[in-house]
This record gives sequence, structure tokens and C-alpha cells, in this order.
Amino acid sequence: MTPFKVQILGCGSALPTTMHNPSSQLVDVNGKLFMIDCGEGTQLQMRKLGVRMGRLHSIFISHLHGDHVFGLPGLISSLGLLGRTAELTIYAHQEIEQFLTPFLNFFCKNLSYNVRLVLLKRKGYNLIYENKSITISSFPLKHRIATSGFLFKETEKLRHIKREMIDYYDIPIREINNIKNGADFITAKGEVVPNDRLTSPPSPQRSYAYCSDTAYDESIVPHIKGVDLLYHEATFSESEIERTAKTGHSTARQAAEIAKLAEVKKLVIGHFSSRYKNLNPLLEEAKAVFDNTELAEEGKIFEL
Amino acid sequence: MTPFKVQILGCGSALPTTMHNPSSQLVDVNGKLFMIDCGEGTQLQMRKLGVRMGRLHSIFISHLHGDHVFGLPGLISSLGLLGRTAELTIYAHQEIEQFLTPFLNFFCKNLSYNVRLVLLKRKGYNLIYENKSITISSFPLKHRIATSGFLFKETEKLRHIKREMIDYYDIPIREINNIKNGADFITAKGEVVPNDRLTSPPSPQRSYAYCSDTAYDESIVPHIKGVDLLYHEATFSESEIERTAKTGHSTARQAAEIAKLAEVKKLVIGHFSSRYKNLNPLLEEAKAVFDNTELAEEGKIFEL
Repeated sequence: MTPFKVQILGCGSALPTTMHNPSSQLVDVNGKLFMIDCGEGTQLQMRKLGVRMGRLHSIFISHLHGDHVFGLPGLISSLGLLGRTAELTIYAHQEIEQFLTPFLNFFCKNLSYNVRLVLLKRKGYNLIYENKSITISSFPLKHRIATSGFLFKETEKLRHIKREMIDYYDIPIREINNIKNGADFITAKGEVVPNDRLTSPPSPQRSYAYCSDTAYDESIVPHIKGVDLLYHEATFSESEIERTAKTGHSTARQAAEIAKLAEVKKLVIGHFSSRYKNLNPLLEEAKAVFDNTELAEEGKIFEL
Repeated sequence: MTPFKVQILGCGSALPTTMHNPSSQLVDVNGKLFMIDCGEGTQLQMRKLGVRMGRLHSIFISHLHGDHVFGLPGLISSLGLLGRTAELTIYAHQEIEQFLTPFLNFFCKNLSYNVRLVLLKRKGYNLIYENKSITISSFPLKHRIATSGFLFKETEKLRHIKREMIDYYDIPIREINNIKNGADFITAKGEVVPNDRLTSPPSPQRSYAYCSDTAYDESIVPHIKGVDLLYHEATFSESEIERTAKTGHSTARQAAEIAKLAEVKKLVIGHFSSRYKNLNPLLEEAKAVFDNTELAEEGKIFEL
């Protein structure tokens, strides 16, 4: 199966701690790395975890709060020092121009590659990137400033052709792809063999959704329905429900409620407030609502 | 003795590695922390090393290359989240305005404290800060852009009054400070006791100099003459002498030559290129010229 995995580089919130770096993660689809958010120290985390910088394809910034973007200047500079030539696309809300343009103008006059900004829409579900393996879409989250969640979904896959049918009907190689795409096969004698006799259904399209930072918001449920893996922020526990509402964040229980409503296969919670030295109460709080929950942790890899 | 020590937070150069963070260090004078340079991850290093953020007094930026300033946005933000109210002064060259002003305007509209920029002069030896324990001065280094070194020097100290003389002449408490300042003592009978009978000379004024980044430049020698501790960059070894010259850096031998010419007591070398996995050759190269040399290292504390 095509590799499709998520590695956590940082799952802390605004104040970094000795336990947690600020937000960043890598989605590895078939060897290409898509970065989501880039808090301070992200390039150091990549080094520490042995991630090859050259595999970085593009960057998706959920929103323009410092703990999600302060690693960009260092990362962009280092990629230049390492001799990158491939254009780097950064998908982000419009406010990024105020942050990044002065930096690029001042520090990156002789950068070895081009940085291209693609601005996210504040409203609606929008396809923002696609290649032959994956589509990436954005949808609005409910936070204090313009914020987007991201859905990574494998593209529609081909049906599996049955080897014994190839032999039985002596199917020529040139027909294989058509059949995988759903075509029937016509034998030399003119016999039509229906596709469902020749093939089994395609593997399911795996999908991953990132929802951070966000308040509890049921309107995201249709966008993330049935995903294999949902990363949902759980900055606080229910005991901080007032602060949660005031700051536009979610509790662990609320993250689990969303996971349950969306019928996802697995939930990972992160973006933990620096006040929690022990995260088990957050995990227990989520598991009470949605059992297949795991805590994010720096370095941890979730395979889909 | 008043505490006067230097703690290394980062001593790598432009490309961070698993061994070294980018440039930053803390000069602790009597409990006040003066930060020199602030590369990415500096606040994370402070956390990791258990440094109390609230003790940070002010920040001195040698020059506006990314590996010396990319930690500022995160640090400034975190100090705000921690509720700092005391003004934070940042001493830096004029280019900092292009970097910091857009950031402050965008991210720090409601910061709990004021950030004050004090611009460094490109030329001459200039006193930039003083309190009752310390003076801090800047002087030009020779790099690709405007760069300053910093000299931290204890203020002139009081003479030590001899306890047995206090008893012998029955010196009243109100006279003690005058005598420590050099005054003679006149007894009740009118006898003049000369100061040098009552006191011993003051402790020497300890001093620390920071020179990074810089090419080999003998014109800095008068500014750092006889310091107790010199931090001088040694980005490369002599085998990279051409690259050293081209990039405006120094070799380990050159750092040691400066230490020797300036007759400093101890040399610490840092700002190591990411190419050196083993720093012993750099240390040996420096020691061949100036024996009392030590390697900088993240977390290491040098007491003066």
C-alpha cells in the first residue's frame, strides 16, 4: 500500500514546555512530505527526528498565530542554505503576507528557490492541492482569527484485477489498465466478460483530517466524515470549560464528541495547554466519549 | 562576590544541527539576565535549562542574520503570555526595524509590556547600558553586515575595609561607606588615619567580551584588552581558510590569535559550522596558539 502517515513534530500550544514543541506535523504521502503548521523549532525537530529536509513538498498553515508560524523564517532560510531549488508553496490565510513578505524581502533576497504563497479561502470546502495520489482540501474552523482545517484524501483508486482471470481469458497487458478503470473485456471470440467478474473493488480511499485550532463546531463534521484519522485539538480539559470557550479552543471531551459525530476511525488529540504535566486525564476524558483515541506526542508516527 | 556568569544557549551557526542550537547566550550579572543574540529555539532552550523567563532584563543583538534573531518573535510572544509588564529593551542595528516592526504590529497589538528598540551605532566604542553593577558597551566587528561586539564590565568597586581597623578605631557605621570610597578617617581626638591603613584595594573589575560574528580583526583588540572571558566565534578551522574569509568568519586559530593579542584570561570559542561533528580539532587548533581555550556547549556556564 502507498505510504500514508502522519508524524507529530510538535503538539504543544502557545507556551512551549520541556515536553512539547509548538504545532507542526508532517503528512507523508508516498514519500512526499506535506507540512501542517510550523511553530518555532520545527526545523530543529526535523533534524532531531532525522527527517530529510529535501523531501518537504509544501506547507499548510492553519492560521496566523505565532505558535503555528514562528518556525517559518528559520525553515525557509535553512532550505536555502541547503541549496533547495524547487519552489516551495505555502498555503495560508491572507494575514501571512504581513508576516512573511517583510521577512522574505529582508532576509531572502538571494534565496536559491522561490516561495509561493497561495491564500486560503475563509469560507467553504475548497480543493487546494491535488496530485495522482492525494487531494488536499481546506474548510473553515471556528477560532479567534481566520483558521482552516485540512483534509488529506487519497484519490480514487483502481479496481484490483484478479490474476487468475488474466490467465483464464489471456488478457493482453494493454487492456489491464482499462479493466482496472472499470471496463469490461471482450475476448477474441467476441464474448463480453463483465468487469465485476474480472476485478474486485478498489482499496478504500484513506483520509486524514487536521482540526486545530478550533472551538467545538459541529459544522466541520460533514467535511471530516468517516476519516481514518482525525487530529483534533484538545487544549484543555472540561474543568477549564470557560477558558476553552473564551479562547476559541476545545476540551478533550469536545474533540471526542466531534470524532464520534463524524464516525472517524481514530482520534488523535493535541495542542495541549502548558498547564498539563500529565495528559492522562485528557486522554481519559476523550476515551469516555470516543474510545479509539490516542495522545499526540513529539516524534510519534500514525500510519493510515 | 557578585554573581557574574555566562550561560551558552546556542553555539551553532546558520544551519542548526542535532548538536547545536543557533546563537544565544545569557549573561547573569547579580541575578539580572542580559541576553546576547536570540536564534530560533532560544525560548525552548531557556525552558529546557530551567531559566526563569522573568529574570530576563534586556536583549543585545549582534547583527541581523537569521541565526541570531529568529527566536525573537517566539520569545517576545511568550513573555507576553507569561504576563510580563516590565519594558523589554532590545539593542540592535537599525535593520531590526524591518524585521521586528511588522511582527510587533501584527502579532503584538495587545502585548502586556512595551518593547523598546535602541539602535546600535555602526562605528566607535559606545556605552549602551549601565547600572550600579555593570556597564555594557558595543564596538564594531567585521562581518558581511553591520555587526557589533559587546563588552560587559563591572563598575568600579569599593575598597575593602579591614574589620580589625573598624574595631581598633571604633569607626561609626555612617563613616564606612566614605572610607570604602577612599576617604581617610578622623578620630574623636582629631588624628587622621590614612585610607590605605584602613582598607585594601577593591576587587578587580571583571569583564566579558562577546565577538560573533566576525572576521579576524585586530582593531577589536583594544576594546577587549585583558578581559576575564572572551567569547570569539570560530566558525571554521584553518583548512577552510578561503571560505572563512569569503563569509566574514574566523577560524579557531584566528580566534586564539585575537585572545593572545588582547591578553585575555580565558577564551571560549563557538558559532561552529554544522560541518564539524567533532570539535576537538578546532579546540586543538586554538590551544596551539592560546592554551586557556574552551569549547562553548549548549547549557555550559562560565563563571567569572
